[in-house]
Amino acid sequence: MFELLKSYKEKDPAASSLIEVLLTYPGVHAIFFYRISNSFYKMKLKLLARLISNIGRFFTGVEIHPGATIGKRLFIDHGLGIVIGETAIIGDDVTLYHQVTLGGTGKESGKRHPTVGNNVFISGGAKVLGSINIGDNVKVGANAVVLKDVPNDCTVVGIPAKIVRRNGNKVREAL
Amino acid sequence: MFELLKSYKEKDPAASSLIEVLLTYPGVHAIFFYRISNSFYKMKLKLLARLISNIGRFFTGVEIHPGATIGKRLFIDHGLGIVIGETAIIGDDVTLYHQVTLGGTGKESGKRHPTVGNNVFISGGAKVLGSINIGDNVKVGANAVVLKDVPNDCTVVGIPAKIVRRNGNKVREAL
Amino acid sequence: MFELLKSYKEKDPAASSLIEVLLTYPGVHAIFFYRISNSFYKMKLKLLARLISNIGRFFTGVEIHPGATIGKRLFIDHGLGIVIGETAIIGDDVTLYHQVTLGGTGKESGKRHPTVGNNVFISGGAKVLGSINIGDNVKVGANAVVLKDVPNDCTVVGIPAKIVRRNGNKVREAL
Repeated sequence: MFELLKSYKEKDPAASSLIEVLLTYPGVHAIFFYRISNSFYKMKLKLLARLISNIGRFFTGVEIHPGATIGKRLFIDHGLGIVIGETAIIGDDVTLYHQVTLGGTGKESGKRHPTVGNNVFISGGAKVLGSINIGDNVKVGANAVVLKDVPNDCTVVGIPAKIVRRNGNKVREAL
Repeated sequence: MFELLKSYKEKDPAASSLIEVLLTYPGVHAIFFYRISNSFYKMKLKLLARLISNIGRFFTGVEIHPGATIGKRLFIDHGLGIVIGETAIIGDDVTLYHQVTLGGTGKESGKRHPTVGNNVFISGGAKVLGSINIGDNVKVGANAVVLKDVPNDCTVVGIPAKIVRRNGNKVREAL
Repeated sequence: MFELLKSYKEKDPAASSLIEVLLTYPGVHAIFFYRISNSFYKMKLKLLARLISNIGRFFTGVEIHPGATIGKRLFIDHGLGIVIGETAIIGDDVTLYHQVTLGGTGKESGKRHPTVGNNVFISGGAKVLGSINIGDNVKVGANAVVLKDVPNDCTVVGIPAKIVRRNGNKVREAL
């Protein structure tokens, strides 16, 4: 938890102390609620897990299904309106802004939410939908709608999302 | 209300019991608050109606104006950030995801919000604006901005929204 | 404050009395919390300012950093999901809808959020990102992503946003 607080302070230029981060960052509170609800989920206490998850949603505006799998140092900035589905998998050092959705398309069963690699940055309002893979070091632009796999080291933007940068070079490719 | 709970359980693959739906689905709670506020609105107790509507918004993150007209079995998934305007009309068996807006353009008076048909599916973040008609069996893609009428059996996506499917066949048509 | 309430009543066709505006408009409450948190911020009581700002976010769903600079008669409609960054500057008579972001790109330090002119209208879900200038009388369309300066008297829409109206005439120009 201390590691998490430190990573928040480093990433946000507006943060001035660890105590400020602990008290006033809804993203930190959301991860705290998720860790508890996820423990109950793993013990098969699903109703209790969902209740705690809902309390977390009420206090933070961030909705993380207790069944989601989340790596280390997830940075949730602002956070209000985020939705993370039951079968979503998130790697380490991922940044999610407010209103980001890791959701389903309604057409799949079983694994129906995205798998997100390490060091991924997803900007505000982006919707990543379906059982797709988002590679490492990917950036997703604000309000983008991502419906297909994204390779490593790419930046994607728009509706539907297209690749506009690959390994730091400008491109214009369909996914 | 029982019919509503059952329809939620059928539509969400993550729901495992009716009691889970009743306790942990903000969409169900939002409709509950709306039914009460709408009753007071019809009795011309508008201030009371608005107060109850606001309490509903506080607890669920879903903002439904008490004057809106809503059909049977509305399925609100996640729901946070939804805005439904005073003169919006929604048919039966409609699905609305989080951050969907059925709003106005600021240019109309009187009827200034959309009329949505039956069996319509509106994905997360979509904005449907103005006194327009959305036909039956329409699907609206994530983050789409719909400003014109949409015929029956079409799928629309993008900003501004274009038709990409009509009766199940791929097309590319302006609205 | 009375001036603010009156401007809300004039701008919203669904508002029927000043007391309704005072009691049931989260946008009014959000500005109230901001004025308090901003006072503490100016006294360098930053932690207290952030705490009050967070309480405002909890009750209204509107997140305004205490350091933001806001002009007269800001009209926040619906409001849930709005994020306004620390170094954002907003002129007079601006209208912001729900889910509007005046945020950063993560690439700048110091002044890293937008400066918005007078009489600007920003529609639901729009993201205005980076230390850019939005001119007077500008309209930003729903779900638009604005990453560059916008001149006076223009309407911009899409991802990334392009100019579609200038001085009331239809155009199609890159920013």
